[in-house]
Amino acid sequence: MLIGARALPGHAAAFSAFNPATGAALEPQFGSAIISDVDLACELADQAFDAYRETTLEQRAAFLEQIAQNIMDLGPALVERAMLESGLPQGRIEGERGRTVNQLRLFAKVVRDGRWQGATLDSALPERVPPRPDLRLRKIAVGPVVVFGASNFPLAFSVGGGDTASALAAGCPVIVKAHGAHPGTSELVGKAIQAAVASCGLPEGVFSMLHGDGRTIGTALVNHPAVKAVGFTGSRQGGTALMRTAAQRPEPIPVYAEMSSINPVFLLPCALENRAGALGTSFIDSLTLGAGQFCTNPGLVIALDGPALESFCASAAAALEEKGAATMLTSGIHSAFTEGVARLAGAQGVTLVGRGKAGDGPCAGRAALFITDAANFVGNPALEDEIFGASSLVVRCSDLEQMHQVAAHLDGQLTATIILDQDDRDAALALLPLLERKAGRILVNGYPTGVEVSHAMVHGGPFPATSDSRSTSVGAGAIDRFLRPVSYQDLPAYLLPAALQENNPQQLWRVRDGELVKA
Amino acid sequence: MLIGARALPGHAAAFSAFNPATGAALEPQFGSAIISDVDLACELADQAFDAYRETTLEQRAAFLEQIAQNIMDLGPALVERAMLESGLPQGRIEGERGRTVNQLRLFAKVVRDGRWQGATLDSALPERVPPRPDLRLRKIAVGPVVVFGASNFPLAFSVGGGDTASALAAGCPVIVKAHGAHPGTSELVGKAIQAAVASCGLPEGVFSMLHGDGRTIGTALVNHPAVKAVGFTGSRQGGTALMRTAAQRPEPIPVYAEMSSINPVFLLPCALENRAGALGTSFIDSLTLGAGQFCTNPGLVIALDGPALESFCASAAAALEEKGAATMLTSGIHSAFTEGVARLAGAQGVTLVGRGKAGDGPCAGRAALFITDAANFVGNPALEDEIFGASSLVVRCSDLEQMHQVAAHLDGQLTATIILDQDDRDAALALLPLLERKAGRILVNGYPTGVEVSHAMVHGGPFPATSDSRSTSVGAGAIDRFLRPVSYQDLPAYLLPAALQENNPQQLWRVRDGELVKA
Repeated sequence: MLIGARALPGHAAAFSAFNPATGAALEPQFGSAIISDVDLACELADQAFDAYRETTLEQRAAFLEQIAQNIMDLGPALVERAMLESGLPQGRIEGERGRTVNQLRLFAKVVRDGRWQGATLDSALPERVPPRPDLRLRKIAVGPVVVFGASNFPLAFSVGGGDTASALAAGCPVIVKAHGAHPGTSELVGKAIQAAVASCGLPEGVFSMLHGDGRTIGTALVNHPAVKAVGFTGSRQGGTALMRTAAQRPEPIPVYAEMSSINPVFLLPCALENRAGALGTSFIDSLTLGAGQFCTNPGLVIALDGPALESFCASAAAALEEKGAATMLTSGIHSAFTEGVARLAGAQGVTLVGRGKAGDGPCAGRAALFITDAANFVGNPALEDEIFGASSLVVRCSDLEQMHQVAAHLDGQLTATIILDQDDRDAALALLPLLERKAGRILVNGYPTGVEVSHAMVHGGPFPATSDSRSTSVGAGAIDRFLRPVSYQDLPAYLLPAALQENNPQQLWRVRDGELVKA
Repeated sequence: MLIGARALPGHAAAFSAFNPATGAALEPQFGSAIISDVDLACELADQAFDAYRETTLEQRAAFLEQIAQNIMDLGPALVERAMLESGLPQGRIEGERGRTVNQLRLFAKVVRDGRWQGATLDSALPERVPPRPDLRLRKIAVGPVVVFGASNFPLAFSVGGGDTASALAAGCPVIVKAHGAHPGTSELVGKAIQAAVASCGLPEGVFSMLHGDGRTIGTALVNHPAVKAVGFTGSRQGGTALMRTAAQRPEPIPVYAEMSSINPVFLLPCALENRAGALGTSFIDSLTLGAGQFCTNPGLVIALDGPALESFCASAAAALEEKGAATMLTSGIHSAFTEGVARLAGAQGVTLVGRGKAGDGPCAGRAALFITDAANFVGNPALEDEIFGASSLVVRCSDLEQMHQVAAHLDGQLTATIILDQDDRDAALALLPLLERKAGRILVNGYPTGVEVSHAMVHGGPFPATSDSRSTSVGAGAIDRFLRPVSYQDLPAYLLPAALQENNPQQLWRVRDGELVKA
């Protein structure tokens, strides 16, 4: 474990990572935290908070860039360990490493840019009755943040992933509860961050990382009074448990949990008519990418019944038959997937369209596609449960009105996709408002599995996709989750933070008396 | 009650308003809602949502301005009724009416300006490997909002107050649960809004207003699946009950509750030394303003012990003796105030500094000032409970370090005030970071009771001041509470909302590829 500047053996419950391709335990063993470790990490974070949040924009940006550099400097050792612990192939891990360091560098740019502070100035109006005071607003960091790493992105959504990067960018110390499936990867990245804290001369409490069980150590972290927000990527069960814990604290705190989404794909009639076969193939490519282990995996297809849909299904089934089994991340994920597919196969009114190849290996996941009709889907909420992995369900609709009923019936989603052709214009215009209510991102003629790290990305959406539809966990906007506004009234110049000083030393875009100006 | 375009008599539990100055019931009687009224109002709001959120900026701004005009057009009838129901004097009600219509007009400006949409565009990079899609983000309204009016501002924080104005500005239909203390005022303002909905040609479900008990009708409103956010101003008990209800829904929703704050005032040593007497007098003026019935009433004074503090207290006590009793808003508020003052008077280690004049009238509140020492204050959490009304507690500290301990010990606050002179510079610099953690607004050499409606105002703060420290309920930023981001990927031009169209028809400031531009 990494607590501030220290690297400590865990005092409790030793455990190992497993290679999901072979089922073999991996050396070395890791030890879990005890409650006093939680207290120490949280107290160090609290002590570091005021100094860290007032580092200059340049200091904070350089720190994020140093973390990125340190992660790259880990070289092949990081890639190899992540491959062993996750079963993911080298290309994917290297790509994910690129995404992770680009994310840190994006937040360095966001920090330097300074717009996240929301600097706003209202001039005093001493002659007005009553006189208006001088008011200046900036956003500041909320306080120490606890981050729960995800299993499916051992780099990009884990120790040095988007939650950590955005919280550090905001000025929040971070305490990571490392995911038990990749403790070795976590330790390597954690040390890279710890080294950056030291070389940048920051207070040690800016970063800590603990191993341990989510129910005990995770809950203790969320309950610690110094902690002011939580970032989480994982299951609906895990996320809602954290939401309950956080809401029941003496001081409730925000939880940003990215949880459960089946990412509906709407095949509009003309597109389906014109290219059913090609769509079947490209859909299966998206469904089976990375063994389907993406929160944005397309787990639902909605289309009008008819010969074109039959062609789509035939093409999809044929493509599926060619897809080999893929090693899933952990035996737990593999069992949950297998059980989910079996449950769907046995559900009333659901029939199999096709399956991928079977495989050996203890965690080999076999892709699956099912079909049902709209009435059955709408009447059976269990059919909307996420099955994490390469499984999807086609919902046959009798007409566009029934397609709208299915859309209106859906839970909140990370994404919703419309596949359309020129002549689907009216159908698309009618569908869009329904989907805006349901999803954080709406795509046309693509598949949702790619999540760009940029300024306009939203990786979020209404519950249960996330716990807080007002936020995104990917992209520049993720920093906003860890900020709160403070207004300063009639402060003398020497008390004003840099962002609000009269001569604008940070050269920020600011709102002055309602207008955006840089002067 | 006003449900969409209808004006209906309440079907349950008839009740009257009371004149707090005399205790007399006021004509006419009002009827409370039943559950089917809640359902109807929420269904109408849901039906209105898509059309209302896509009104043009100009349409929405004109609607807010029409509401303001209709409220002014109510003329003296509104002022008289509000005075009768609240016991507040004419000048105060007229000032509050001005604040209310200015608030609506500020949000009209905010809507027209369009920055609230957060328009962000990332250009496609088709040559990149993998290609980057075209991504565009805007913020959209969350959905129908339930607003609970406050008792202490029958206009500015009630039916047509800040919560309603900011939710309507965001594009959310609003259902108001009117406060039982001013049903007549509520009805007048509600009809002004209803008339604006009709004359602006908006769907009737954009606004409804129900009377009824908070526990039954209020809870039913918060539990309705069509409702997506809640605004509330009132007691900590009421606010935390709504937070629990909202968190336990199948789909949890955000609650913006502005609840409990004692607004500490720190008298720094040189300021106290130089002008103890004048500070005592001005402090009492702020404490007793409006019978102390402000969420920003200064309920706590922290200062170093010594002769200067004795002068402050002597001056305050003398000023207090001259303050007549003031009619409080309701008999419930008056009893709670009287009991709170009695509890404080009887608390261990607390002594009386002075009291205002006694009065007759059933709701006559008699101001009070007490003193205790820092150790007693820190050791007794009950001394930090808000007493709504003109009661305050002086906390004597032995040195600046103890003053910091008191600051660090405080709960979240709406405001924190520093009274300082030139030579208090170092003490102020040391205190500021502590206060930034605790409060939404920090003032120097003023009193917190005035809350300017402008761009840089924060009327918010960490729990229990509010349920969500990331927000403000006053000022332009209040609109952000009712928005969520949606990202659009590779949409054809005809599907793009105006804010994101290539030619920027709304002439917005937008973030394009990370840079703020208007072109």
